[in-house]
Amino acid sequence: MEAKPLTSAEEAWRIAASLNYRQRDGTVVAVAQDAETGEVLMVAHMDPVAVFLTLVTGLAHYWSTSRRRLWLKGETSGHYQYVVELRTDCDGDAVLLKVVQIGAACHTGSRSCFGSRYSKLLPEPGRLKSRLIAD
Amino acid sequence: MEAKPLTSAEEAWRIAASLNYRQRDGTVVAVAQDAETGEVLMVAHMDPVAVFLTLVTGLAHYWSTSRRRLWLKGETSGHYQYVVELRTDCDGDAVLLKVVQIGAACHTGSRSCFGSRYSKLLPEPGRLKSRLIAD
Repeated sequence: MEAKPLTSAEEAWRIAASLNYRQRDGTVVAVAQDAETGEVLMVAHMDPVAVFLTLVTGLAHYWSTSRRRLWLKGETSGHYQYVVELRTDCDGDAVLLKVVQIGAACHTGSRSCFGSRYSKLLPEPGRLKSRLIAD
Repeated sequence: MEAKPLTSAEEAWRIAASLNYRQRDGTVVAVAQDAETGEVLMVAHMDPVAVFLTLVTGLAHYWSTSRRRLWLKGETSGHYQYVVELRTDCDGDAVLLKVVQIGAACHTGSRSCFGSRYSKLLPEPGRLKSRLIAD
């Protein structure tokens, strides 16, 4: 098959410049979601350069708020994220990356950063809906 | 059917107190995901009281960074989010809410805040995988 071209530098800068970097350290919040299963893998931050590099390379780049530097996801672990799609939200301060995750997204070795700790509140959605409609 | 009990106040405070409120205005980032379809609906922020109230009521509460106050999602629109599950991430500065969304999640009237603007970067995941393996 033919590989589709990635975003041009001009278009990538246009998109990067259109966002609202009002989160921590002048970033947008980035949510990485498995493009196949829909599982939310991690939440991180992106500065304008991270958005630009993600768009032109197709590999997820972030701004590391702990190390205070640009961070190519997978640069040490090899757990790269191939970005299938980048979406921006209604007020431009968050982006959603649909990714093909190589290996684990989480530094703990888990597939998702949200894997371990949770509180179950309500019945399954289908059962909840029947209850809401029945009530 | 029998309704399962929601989180007790003691347990809710334990969970709320365990998080790392290092995001904007002393919050954690909250990602709301449709519990049935997996669609990411919105990104918002939660302070400790929002986490507590979400856990004990089962209705998503956030900290509004624009209005600088607690915000029950749906309080004016009626577009409540029934929280099926609350997950916390590996370093405790983000939570994932799996919700049953009533009406639209976005203030623009769209189902998701990520509905409108996007950049398609790579082929569909299945095709991408075959390409990566073939190369």
